[in-house]
Amino acid sequence: MLSLSKFHMILFFMSLVSPNLSNAIPINIWPKPRLLSWPQHKAIALSPYFTILSPQHQYFSASVSRYHNLIRSENHSPLITHPVKLTKGYTLSSLVINVTDLSLPLHHGVNESYTLSIPIGSISAHLSAHSVWGAMRGLETFSQMVWGRSPHLCLPVGIHIQDSPLFGHRGVLLDTSRNYYGVDDIMRTIKAMSANKLNVFHWHITDSHSFPLVLPSEPSLAAKGAYGPDMVYTPEDVSKIVQFGFEHGVRVLPEIDTPGHTGSWGEAYPDIVTCGNMFWLPAGKSWSERLASEPGTGQLNPLTPKTYEVVRNVIRDVVKQFPEPFFHGGADEVVPGCWKTDPAISSFLSSGGTLSQLLEKYINSTLPYIVSQNRTVVYWEDVLLDAQIKADPSVLPKEHTILQTWNNGPENTKRIVAAGYRVIVSSSEFYYLDCGHGGFLGNDSQYDQQGRGGGGSWCAPFKTWQSIYNYDITDGLVDEEERKLVLGGEVALWSEQADSTVLDSRLWPRASALAESLWSGNRDERGVKRYGEAVDRLNLWRYRMVKRGIGAEPIQPLWCLRNPGMCNAAQDALEDQ
Amino acid sequence: MLSLSKFHMILFFMSLVSPNLSNAIPINIWPKPRLLSWPQHKAIALSPYFTILSPQHQYFSASVSRYHNLIRSENHSPLITHPVKLTKGYTLSSLVINVTDLSLPLHHGVNESYTLSIPIGSISAHLSAHSVWGAMRGLETFSQMVWGRSPHLCLPVGIHIQDSPLFGHRGVLLDTSRNYYGVDDIMRTIKAMSANKLNVFHWHITDSHSFPLVLPSEPSLAAKGAYGPDMVYTPEDVSKIVQFGFEHGVRVLPEIDTPGHTGSWGEAYPDIVTCGNMFWLPAGKSWSERLASEPGTGQLNPLTPKTYEVVRNVIRDVVKQFPEPFFHGGADEVVPGCWKTDPAISSFLSSGGTLSQLLEKYINSTLPYIVSQNRTVVYWEDVLLDAQIKADPSVLPKEHTILQTWNNGPENTKRIVAAGYRVIVSSSEFYYLDCGHGGFLGNDSQYDQQGRGGGGSWCAPFKTWQSIYNYDITDGLVDEEERKLVLGGEVALWSEQADSTVLDSRLWPRASALAESLWSGNRDERGVKRYGEAVDRLNLWRYRMVKRGIGAEPIQPLWCLRNPGMCNAAQDALEDQ
Repeated sequence: MLSLSKFHMILFFMSLVSPNLSNAIPINIWPKPRLLSWPQHKAIALSPYFTILSPQHQYFSASVSRYHNLIRSENHSPLITHPVKLTKGYTLSSLVINVTDLSLPLHHGVNESYTLSIPIGSISAHLSAHSVWGAMRGLETFSQMVWGRSPHLCLPVGIHIQDSPLFGHRGVLLDTSRNYYGVDDIMRTIKAMSANKLNVFHWHITDSHSFPLVLPSEPSLAAKGAYGPDMVYTPEDVSKIVQFGFEHGVRVLPEIDTPGHTGSWGEAYPDIVTCGNMFWLPAGKSWSERLASEPGTGQLNPLTPKTYEVVRNVIRDVVKQFPEPFFHGGADEVVPGCWKTDPAISSFLSSGGTLSQLLEKYINSTLPYIVSQNRTVVYWEDVLLDAQIKADPSVLPKEHTILQTWNNGPENTKRIVAAGYRVIVSSSEFYYLDCGHGGFLGNDSQYDQQGRGGGGSWCAPFKTWQSIYNYDITDGLVDEEERKLVLGGEVALWSEQADSTVLDSRLWPRASALAESLWSGNRDERGVKRYGEAVDRLNLWRYRMVKRGIGAEPIQPLWCLRNPGMCNAAQDALEDQ
Repeated sequence: MLSLSKFHMILFFMSLVSPNLSNAIPINIWPKPRLLSWPQHKAIALSPYFTILSPQHQYFSASVSRYHNLIRSENHSPLITHPVKLTKGYTLSSLVINVTDLSLPLHHGVNESYTLSIPIGSISAHLSAHSVWGAMRGLETFSQMVWGRSPHLCLPVGIHIQDSPLFGHRGVLLDTSRNYYGVDDIMRTIKAMSANKLNVFHWHITDSHSFPLVLPSEPSLAAKGAYGPDMVYTPEDVSKIVQFGFEHGVRVLPEIDTPGHTGSWGEAYPDIVTCGNMFWLPAGKSWSERLASEPGTGQLNPLTPKTYEVVRNVIRDVVKQFPEPFFHGGADEVVPGCWKTDPAISSFLSSGGTLSQLLEKYINSTLPYIVSQNRTVVYWEDVLLDAQIKADPSVLPKEHTILQTWNNGPENTKRIVAAGYRVIVSSSEFYYLDCGHGGFLGNDSQYDQQGRGGGGSWCAPFKTWQSIYNYDITDGLVDEEERKLVLGGEVALWSEQADSTVLDSRLWPRASALAESLWSGNRDERGVKRYGEAVDRLNLWRYRMVKRGIGAEPIQPLWCLRNPGMCNAAQDALEDQ
């Protein structure tokens, strides 16, 4: 352990100050706050008796206690050091937190702004927020400013931060059906999200491959549809995850994808599923005649009354388990071929009925029920935009329906807001984190020729952090009216080729790129994209996440951090901008 | 714990038997043995007192003991089950191992063949091999045949395996300079290699970014050139790794890359390095005037006598630490611009000297020294094939020089063997495991346009396991004479964007694809590429590796294993072949 005087002498501070990076703030907070002022670049020691004074709150108190522990135990050692002047004579003994309205719930659009000040000459820092959720964001910021080895910790002083998000919906989608993840994996993900000020864990729980959610009213769905008795989420698991989410300011938004992507339901209820357990692309058939867009067939039969009985039981149980006001109903990739395998549906179609009518019947029989449970319904864009099977806007009331876009980049976002719907952006071109690792299909003839190894992944290439960071989700929208309909965005990890072995490295730090882009944007004060300046900051943040137990993948050799600017593509490129 | 009778009743066996996969052997050994006969599909229980009888040997005894533990503790539970008939009345009580020549060293080309028999009616299984290294391969095979929950283990009986590798050099390259890996990471990698019957750990120890190898004669190289005092490999570490390699039948082949890729040497010896710590692509200069092919400049100065003093000290120490008869000297990517920054070199060039003469001088001053240490030198192909700086074949004696190819796919392999050199294939188009994750350069202007996210990685796309599996490293060679010069291949993990967080998932199971391709090939009995049949086997093996502590990435949803054939690209595709 260093003596305190020696400690003073070698006090360093994480800094990117260099001729090329003079505009960078020399404190690495990710995502970068909207406004940070620290004119004198002074630091102060944290008192060994440092405390956080905060109002009591069901979830916030746990958060405060967690941050108090983190601050005192993280022992963050900056990878880039720069001398900083330590203010002597006193230490910072407390952080005083004020919350305007303790009752504001963790809903979409809740005020997450905060201000954080550590005035020179005061033994207290001050954090003010409208809601406890904003206060949690401020606590995260505070934690990222602390460095040193306990009990010799310090942090900047004479600093003032005013911060708030650009978008209210900043999410990560995780698919737990194609492969299973443990409860610990999900909680670690929520913890990492919170550290990145991401606030929506979009849990794509079920799909054709497995049904891991144990539901009291429909226990057979998981009993027969899960991968195994040890690969389920019990009500206790869900409750633990939801509670953990609240304590981290992360909404847990459940998705029960129907009427497509429901093959796993057929294990318990073969009668309500069409084309279950069939080969997804029958021999001799064209793509338009496929039974599913990938292996794993099965769609709920909209003409079977039993379907609605089961679906409503599922919805009712899910609504009970998930207090989140949004309910994601899926409704993507409903494929004609699958429904057509059913005799009743065939006969309906022969009598002049249409596939879209079937979808509308399904929506009309489920959406009002979801709404009756006080939920806003989120559907994938397909329900409105699919070329073959789509619902008329009249069955998709705008006040109760949000659409999530994934195709055609900015084009579909435009179409959705032009139709008057709120939208969540998860463009597969930019935000799909699973892409670029080849295809998962067996015996794919494109591999017959050696060297054709790049193919097989429909959404290749790999989405780099820069690609995610640079994407403007309101690109091309015509006015503020349209832009206001864009609630935010989500990166998505579909699990055909992911499970707990790669969860952290697929998500991080790329989801961090989304986090900053949606929190404080991807441009500097001059309106220029700041990915050039962001690389060192993201790299530093990635190392800090790793130390916090998140296995984020490296984006550069360590050498690049040790030699700021030297790993750029071109010399002085930042000055050229 | 199950009772034994219940255990008998529910005895299942891992099997891929299905109409489409009737040619698949129903035992999942990876890599697939050359010859496996198991006509009656019967199994036998392993005695709780099962022992392995083997000759004593410095390294082999440790291997035997390890397998004995693994067999009794792995508790392998097959993911695909199929009834198998258990032979009753006796159990298998021993594996008797015979080794023809215990003195055969772990060198390139050592006989790794083995035969393994578990006859019906005998309480002993028999493993015979020419060398202990072949016996280790047989032990691995034996371990992969065992399943069940201890003490209720069983394995096939009436089985006979005759096995040997197609290629003697089957390797994994790991770059520990751009990012550092712990000793445990390296040992885990060697363990996984051994399980895949890979036999060469090509350790790219040093490069421009860091010099982590602590050398008694040149301690300042690591003291100043490593990333930090905790990010080095001490002689004790190396000795531990080399010993671990022997116990796993894995050669540890050191690479000290010179004269290029030596920026890190300049921290201790600035005088022997040209263009050290300069920006890699000077402003206003073209690619041909670059100082290095990526950030991290520095090349050893061939005109400075001190260079050779240091290099020989390094070589001598490395040879002492690594008993492996191959010594990799690097010699790739020697860049004109870097040498030209040196006044003495400039003047040499002005006087009519050439860059290639400088390289030849360097080779002539180091290769004979390496050879004098009883080592065969491996260089990257550049030393012979580079367009600008290359050595005349006369300074690269064929009996002492092996070339490793990485550019132009099969083309350069052809050129090397046509010139009469032995070759190790690590084609970047097929075998570079780091590719496809975007670029690591900061502020890369190709990201100015949103949507240009695929770029930045010179060797994109991601090399899928199929791409690796399908590559024929002797493709296009004209005769057996040429083919015999191909010693084998290596997959390579360069570490610009890899470190311990992603080590396992970048390597596995893709290195397993190489392993089978180089051990027993990538074609079935009819000569047809067998990747279609291999997908389920590789998937199963991937799950088994994960259980063994190797974080291999998933290649398919678990659903695909549970539903054999259903994840294929086309129905009945195997029958169409």
